[in-house]
Amino acid sequence: MATEKVVPNRQILLKDYVSGFPKETDMVLTSTTTSSKVPPGSGAVLLKNIYLSCDPYMRGRMSKPISQNYADSFVPGSVIYGYGVAKVVDSEHPDLKAGDLVWGITGWEEFSLVSNPRRLLKIKHTDVPLSYYTGILGMPGLTAYVGFHEICSPKKGETVYVSAASGAVGQLVGQFAKLMGCYVVGSAGSKEKVDLLKNKFGFDDAFNYKEEHDLNAALKRCFPEGIDIYFENVGGRMLDAVLLNMKVHGRIAVCGLISQYNLHEQEGVHNLFCVITKRIRMQGFIEPDHKHLYPQFLELAVQYIREGKIVYVEDIAEGLENAPSALIGLFSGRNVGKQVVRIAHE
Amino acid sequence: MATEKVVPNRQILLKDYVSGFPKETDMVLTSTTTSSKVPPGSGAVLLKNIYLSCDPYMRGRMSKPISQNYADSFVPGSVIYGYGVAKVVDSEHPDLKAGDLVWGITGWEEFSLVSNPRRLLKIKHTDVPLSYYTGILGMPGLTAYVGFHEICSPKKGETVYVSAASGAVGQLVGQFAKLMGCYVVGSAGSKEKVDLLKNKFGFDDAFNYKEEHDLNAALKRCFPEGIDIYFENVGGRMLDAVLLNMKVHGRIAVCGLISQYNLHEQEGVHNLFCVITKRIRMQGFIEPDHKHLYPQFLELAVQYIREGKIVYVEDIAEGLENAPSALIGLFSGRNVGKQVVRIAHE
Repeated sequence: MATEKVVPNRQILLKDYVSGFPKETDMVLTSTTTSSKVPPGSGAVLLKNIYLSCDPYMRGRMSKPISQNYADSFVPGSVIYGYGVAKVVDSEHPDLKAGDLVWGITGWEEFSLVSNPRRLLKIKHTDVPLSYYTGILGMPGLTAYVGFHEICSPKKGETVYVSAASGAVGQLVGQFAKLMGCYVVGSAGSKEKVDLLKNKFGFDDAFNYKEEHDLNAALKRCFPEGIDIYFENVGGRMLDAVLLNMKVHGRIAVCGLISQYNLHEQEGVHNLFCVITKRIRMQGFIEPDHKHLYPQFLELAVQYIREGKIVYVEDIAEGLENAPSALIGLFSGRNVGKQVVRIAHE
Repeated sequence: MATEKVVPNRQILLKDYVSGFPKETDMVLTSTTTSSKVPPGSGAVLLKNIYLSCDPYMRGRMSKPISQNYADSFVPGSVIYGYGVAKVVDSEHPDLKAGDLVWGITGWEEFSLVSNPRRLLKIKHTDVPLSYYTGILGMPGLTAYVGFHEICSPKKGETVYVSAASGAVGQLVGQFAKLMGCYVVGSAGSKEKVDLLKNKFGFDDAFNYKEEHDLNAALKRCFPEGIDIYFENVGGRMLDAVLLNMKVHGRIAVCGLISQYNLHEQEGVHNLFCVITKRIRMQGFIEPDHKHLYPQFLELAVQYIREGKIVYVEDIAEGLENAPSALIGLFSGRNVGKQVVRIAHE
């Protein structure tokens, strides 16, 4: 058994609460040290972090605490945290031992002492990229799965529209919908992403929303008969255009509103009358409510990956020092696919 | 058998499509004549109209046809139509005979020739006021019933908020919710209506929205623990305030958006992020989708009325010539209770 030593530990801290678009300088890289051993009797686990996940919901944690958020705010001056993949260095938890690979909530730092290891999941399947546990096999994967299969009540042959469709969640929603036999159209913010949607993920059609001056017209072109299911990642004027193009008894799974996260005042949505005339069901959801479905989802998703039925595109930044830039890139759509940061080699 | 004669028939016509708030002068009273007999071989029914129903959805029919509406527009220069109660004068339909009382869609005129009598329902229960078939025992009644019981998924002990709560639908939603053991608060636009809510319909609390400069604060005062169910009749800034006060897993039945019907541009709704954070289900619905539930609803509602478990307040205008004023009064909230127009004696 290795003896205790003090190891250097670089960390990303939140400087202060953020208002408006976050900047790299809202976060700071610092150097500290940590013990290589878990405090005796603590029941804690010490992790060496390998992959950090950049997710849009983290923007909410950078704001001053408000009662309407669903995630606690980060603490200014403290380490940023989020989903990640890590290797156990030392453990006082009976189910985890040194060398185990885990995923769950961890710090944006080289080493994290996790005092509540029940929230870490041991990684069993390692024939797939480990980074996938921040994406298709992690929170975004389950989000796409429950959002589409549980919230959208999809049926074969229905028309499905996905916004932010090349992102961590969107690319999966589109592929799940194709596997179910739906007609799927996605939108994204660049030609490269639109090509991915059509040629890599198998969407039936796709468009670059930045090149459409009239979103309503774009949706009418893609869905002359209307939209049965909208998987909402964007909000604002996109939602307004979608409402005009929904079919009667359509369903909208409200997963995210990324167009709104950095605005001081939310854009108004003006076409809610369509909710009545078309008897639309809009349903908000968050993945933690559906954690009980994770085991079955994991087996299914791993099978799909092995069989090549689903592919997953990641955008991997290298180095902890590049994590802030990777995170804020989400809000300008710089990432192509799921944004991950690799901070150590496996 | 009476011989055919020509009888005078006064009618209310729509002059032209309406934009903005409707005015009495958008409609016109004319005099014409009609035959007292149904054309031989037509299968039609001739009605003598008794009660006409004024309903907010009729505003949509006064506008130029748009693809997003759920009801066809009236035809300028033609008779306005809507729900009503009538007596059969002559019939070529096997199920209806002279003297039968019916309710259904009829014209705003003294006599209506109905060529598709399958859409008329024969009135069986006549120990209740006949006008109730425009309200509690008609479309608004079934709307309140399915909106609350089918769309809101209510449970005993939950908190329920109803806007436009003294109206044709709202007063029933509140009473259904009380019968189920919910805590019910309503809002309306005058002291008289608030008194009705509290003292006649048995709401637990009520407020006059016109006297609240901060709807969010009003709702926080009435629902310190938040709202499980919102029955939406109003839209706009009321919906924004409600979203801030919904509980996690709350439900919003979207029945009407009367605050928006006369606006050239709909108010924006800004707090839809709460739909995610609180996992809210917003479900639009219209009563025609649920017609199959009418027979069971009718028996239940008649029983409730006979037992005094539910009361119903109507605002009855007298005379066809006063129908236009009664209809437009809905949009300034002039009516107290369900707005009906009596144009003949039973």
